[in-house]
Amino acid sequence: MNESNVKSRKRVAIVGATGYSGAELTAIMARHAEVELVALFSSSSTARGPVTPTLPQFIAEPFSIDALIAAQPEIVFLATPNEVSAGLAPQLLDLGMRVIDLSGAFRLEEPSMYPTWYGFDHERPNLLGEAVYGLTEYCNGELKNARLVANPGCYPTSILLALRPLTFAIDREQPVICDSKSGVSGAGKKADVNFSFAELFGNFKAYSVGQHRHEPEIRQQLHLGDRAPVVFVAHLLPVHRGILSTIHIGFTHPMSEQQITDAYTRAYDHAPFVRVLPAGQLPELKNVVNTPRAEIGFQLLHGGRRAVIVSVLDNLLKGAASQAVQNFNRMCGFPETEALI
Amino acid sequence: MNESNVKSRKRVAIVGATGYSGAELTAIMARHAEVELVALFSSSSTARGPVTPTLPQFIAEPFSIDALIAAQPEIVFLATPNEVSAGLAPQLLDLGMRVIDLSGAFRLEEPSMYPTWYGFDHERPNLLGEAVYGLTEYCNGELKNARLVANPGCYPTSILLALRPLTFAIDREQPVICDSKSGVSGAGKKADVNFSFAELFGNFKAYSVGQHRHEPEIRQQLHLGDRAPVVFVAHLLPVHRGILSTIHIGFTHPMSEQQITDAYTRAYDHAPFVRVLPAGQLPELKNVVNTPRAEIGFQLLHGGRRAVIVSVLDNLLKGAASQAVQNFNRMCGFPETEALI
Amino acid sequence: MNESNVKSRKRVAIVGATGYSGAELTAIMARHAEVELVALFSSSSTARGPVTPTLPQFIAEPFSIDALIAAQPEIVFLATPNEVSAGLAPQLLDLGMRVIDLSGAFRLEEPSMYPTWYGFDHERPNLLGEAVYGLTEYCNGELKNARLVANPGCYPTSILLALRPLTFAIDREQPVICDSKSGVSGAGKKADVNFSFAELFGNFKAYSVGQHRHEPEIRQQLHLGDRAPVVFVAHLLPVHRGILSTIHIGFTHPMSEQQITDAYTRAYDHAPFVRVLPAGQLPELKNVVNTPRAEIGFQLLHGGRRAVIVSVLDNLLKGAASQAVQNFNRMCGFPETEALI
Amino acid sequence: MNESNVKSRKRVAIVGATGYSGAELTAIMARHAEVELVALFSSSSTARGPVTPTLPQFIAEPFSIDALIAAQPEIVFLATPNEVSAGLAPQLLDLGMRVIDLSGAFRLEEPSMYPTWYGFDHERPNLLGEAVYGLTEYCNGELKNARLVANPGCYPTSILLALRPLTFAIDREQPVICDSKSGVSGAGKKADVNFSFAELFGNFKAYSVGQHRHEPEIRQQLHLGDRAPVVFVAHLLPVHRGILSTIHIGFTHPMSEQQITDAYTRAYDHAPFVRVLPAGQLPELKNVVNTPRAEIGFQLLHGGRRAVIVSVLDNLLKGAASQAVQNFNRMCGFPETEALI
Repeated sequence: MNESNVKSRKRVAIVGATGYSGAELTAIMARHAEVELVALFSSSSTARGPVTPTLPQFIAEPFSIDALIAAQPEIVFLATPNEVSAGLAPQLLDLGMRVIDLSGAFRLEEPSMYPTWYGFDHERPNLLGEAVYGLTEYCNGELKNARLVANPGCYPTSILLALRPLTFAIDREQPVICDSKSGVSGAGKKADVNFSFAELFGNFKAYSVGQHRHEPEIRQQLHLGDRAPVVFVAHLLPVHRGILSTIHIGFTHPMSEQQITDAYTRAYDHAPFVRVLPAGQLPELKNVVNTPRAEIGFQLLHGGRRAVIVSVLDNLLKGAASQAVQNFNRMCGFPETEALI
Repeated sequence: MNESNVKSRKRVAIVGATGYSGAELTAIMARHAEVELVALFSSSSTARGPVTPTLPQFIAEPFSIDALIAAQPEIVFLATPNEVSAGLAPQLLDLGMRVIDLSGAFRLEEPSMYPTWYGFDHERPNLLGEAVYGLTEYCNGELKNARLVANPGCYPTSILLALRPLTFAIDREQPVICDSKSGVSGAGKKADVNFSFAELFGNFKAYSVGQHRHEPEIRQQLHLGDRAPVVFVAHLLPVHRGILSTIHIGFTHPMSEQQITDAYTRAYDHAPFVRVLPAGQLPELKNVVNTPRAEIGFQLLHGGRRAVIVSVLDNLLKGAASQAVQNFNRMCGFPETEALI
Repeated sequence: MNESNVKSRKRVAIVGATGYSGAELTAIMARHAEVELVALFSSSSTARGPVTPTLPQFIAEPFSIDALIAAQPEIVFLATPNEVSAGLAPQLLDLGMRVIDLSGAFRLEEPSMYPTWYGFDHERPNLLGEAVYGLTEYCNGELKNARLVANPGCYPTSILLALRPLTFAIDREQPVICDSKSGVSGAGKKADVNFSFAELFGNFKAYSVGQHRHEPEIRQQLHLGDRAPVVFVAHLLPVHRGILSTIHIGFTHPMSEQQITDAYTRAYDHAPFVRVLPAGQLPELKNVVNTPRAEIGFQLLHGGRRAVIVSVLDNLLKGAASQAVQNFNRMCGFPETEALI
Repeated sequence: MNESNVKSRKRVAIVGATGYSGAELTAIMARHAEVELVALFSSSSTARGPVTPTLPQFIAEPFSIDALIAAQPEIVFLATPNEVSAGLAPQLLDLGMRVIDLSGAFRLEEPSMYPTWYGFDHERPNLLGEAVYGLTEYCNGELKNARLVANPGCYPTSILLALRPLTFAIDREQPVICDSKSGVSGAGKKADVNFSFAELFGNFKAYSVGQHRHEPEIRQQLHLGDRAPVVFVAHLLPVHRGILSTIHIGFTHPMSEQQITDAYTRAYDHAPFVRVLPAGQLPELKNVVNTPRAEIGFQLLHGGRRAVIVSVLDNLLKGAASQAVQNFNRMCGFPETEALI
């Protein structure tokens, strides 16, 4: 870090720094040349302690609003549970801070969906209209002045990056099948026998079929219309990190490899963190774990009338922390890749 | 084992006993009360040695047809590569032995498919018509007198058990998506950097999309007609054993949970190795690993117009060795569960 | 199972059948030809349910002493926590039942060690003198009439089997270093973030150095005298099952490979579940996981003045359930291998 | 990277960039502010291709000495097999380049040990005397002018960092037991069935006991004298990365926790990549994986007459690539932490 520009650095705080995503976020922001990390808070712990054992030099304090205010941050990252974010973000906005929320509290546009999918009522439903859905590659000027960014869910990011460039060609009469598999860190730090090593080693299973909170988020952001039969199935993969989504779609007209490649090129030619593989080549999880990158590959089937698309990313990075930093960089006018490569 | 009935025991040989499936088969047959294991052969090794380190008491010999003949088996299991089985099975049949083949050499009914999918021409195509496809739960009297049984593939078994009871209701205009995930033992013992621990630990990927040999086998045995758009995607799961298939189907008419449950009950009420879970409950891999059992669960979606079906089994047991023993028991008139529970 | 001898079968109950060891024990005893399983209890659950998802056919009831008595067992296995066993075993003995306890409640001979190492006082210290320490290979007639068997700990079993045949040659002036590594199932079913998959995947650590309850058990049973500097270090291996102990010893006089081999042969030539490898060959974990067998290998160093001994077993089987069944078979006069091979 | 200082940047080449350590090295050096990476070579491949799939932007060329010379590097890293390094390093030195060798080719001081331990004769034995053994924390001015640095082995680094501060107190009459466990990447990229996923998943074993090449390196660098009975046992841990060494030592006089802590503090107070934990606290593997840091903890036993010391590091970083960069930084007068934090 260059000491000469300390004055001009953005003052940043992180709440929830001790969770898996929060710790990744802390590590990234600590090497950001344009940032001064003025406060790190855990969201649940009552004792101060290291953000994570791999970052013993960073200490998180138990959260208090007074301590946060005293630190005078300009931008606050919330890596907190949904309900905590829903309550805290409005307070911070009222204090004039900008907020990047990594939870699901501001991702859905329709307030009435919160009781159903998240189990709580939104006290400030108007913020749902204001919040920018931060799928960075699909944001333009709106991040520049955003007060509140809803950082996308990990599963939705993997699916939306794969499908958004192809929506023009997708047959909405046929089901869009999103068969996703995630590493266990996606569930957070848990004292739960169902997430114990002894139960998950060598195991694999689907979960929350038809009931996963990311499903309405995916539908909303796919822009395929209400009638499109989207199916989302999440699975628990016995690895620490990473999401792989296998997506099955039909087209209204047979597509060529070149047409698909062109569509992806148009979408991501200038996207530093999305890599599209040559036609017929499919990505694997290990190539993106511990990186801020998503990779996408596809295979045409049935004479181009269908495709299998495979998308991979690290759920804690492109699925959470590094995408939040992409959004932060855009909000502040910094290069999108700052601190990320 | 009861020494009194040695004379009446079936004389059985196993070729390919040192592979992963062959070793499982050896372990099962060694505890079969009605069997005398008269010969164990490896298919590739040139030295005698233990079938597997966990079974140090069983020694496999390098294969020779003379040694096999000398052992005078009545029934021979072939846990050998496709081309080895294709060449060897006819010889054994000509010698009057019965054959249970665990490879893909006799699974496809149409000889012309072998050059395309398996890379070799069948010298005895008429045997493809004679071979009984040994998905045990769907075999009746034909096993009793079968000379040659084609033991089903691991992926097809997991998919067919899940779908066959529902074919009457499946909408053949909609894609039938079979998104399957298998442990690494499915690839056999391999000196291949792509199957090395260092490359697969923490990894996950799809493979052979549109090109997997099990795909024509699934289509053939689903009996959905040529036009039904079946999609099969295999993935490599970072575990040793087990297959989980997530299957996405549409129905011609909305179905109730009771209708689905009834269909499965009709199919498997008397099947000792297929367990159907209550509606809305999905199986997990660990519950069937090291067992001869398949488990099936389903979740209705979209008002009963679609379903997600999840099917699990151990690829080396119900997907290979234990199903071969079910077939053996039926061929010989022994109880289907003998040596398996 | 042969129905004709139902009357003469031993009536057996298991308390704690839903734990990892208890479920293994249930699976073994269910196939025991001479046993009638008259009752299965969980020790903690308040609802009836399957012993384990892989054994859906066996249902455990919440424990009650009345239900246990009503079932009229002759022999009761306790796969219960230490304090539960300490309280329950005396009651059962008083009722005339025989008890095989898989906990540590009766393993230490000296009552005063219980407050220090186990955190409770023994109410019936005289039972510590009566209990037979069930390291089966070192038991003789005493099991025949035992009322109470203390089944050895998993770590002690792996270490004692390796060292007991060599105690005559071990230099007691030099440290005896037992560097042991266990799979996570050794800790039992736990809702504890430190045993969560996300924390243990790809991880490895030592734990409880100088404070592990198995340390006094090892010292007591090694019979090396109080002065011998025994060091025991346990590590948590990121696998589900299995213990590997690497043991470092010095000899009073240089030993030859033949001398070591002879000592082991004398000890285990007739032991069906202990396999000693040829000199210089070391065992690996996977060869004993899911088997009732321990394997031992050694490598002489420094001109025969020292050795490294490696011992492996499955902590849930030879380290718990299958050894308990060996003891049961000896107690009842059945063949030691019954239900185990 | 600041474009203004391109002229003054060090010109660096890497041979063996496509191996596991080489790829880590490439990633680090690519973000080094003072370095121009002028050439990347694989050591074995005959085709150009990405250094590693996670770094698709870096392309390695097949090695040729002409291409290396044409690139005009000032410093060359060799992440090549032992014999390749032994042959190549002298050529590069003769051409006036400086060499940091990550292989074992120059680690042993005594030429006669090479045929025994490495299977080849050294053609330039005088270089063994010149090479600086690059355990960075124990190097002083000698790196500044070094032409040839022998980067330490991964196991020796983990053991030497733990023991060197305590050599003054170690009882050389008692064995020094180094029980080390390494992730599979330590073996390199291998097409070998013994390193296949199917064989190593859920497995654990000791290997090369008494025959590991790192053993003479450890003895040489411990400076305990020839008579000290050092025992080194390596184990293969079923994880991708990381080494944990459990070290058992005796002291000539009873030691206090404070004395041990003081000794470590003296050694590492200013070492940016060695972290010593408070007395009685032991490190775990995951806290150093993917970091350039070693962590050390200890537990006194037997009234301070003995200790268990546990040391962890990432075998590909502090055990290879990041330590090589520490050495590079010292050789060039850059801050030791440049590109590493």
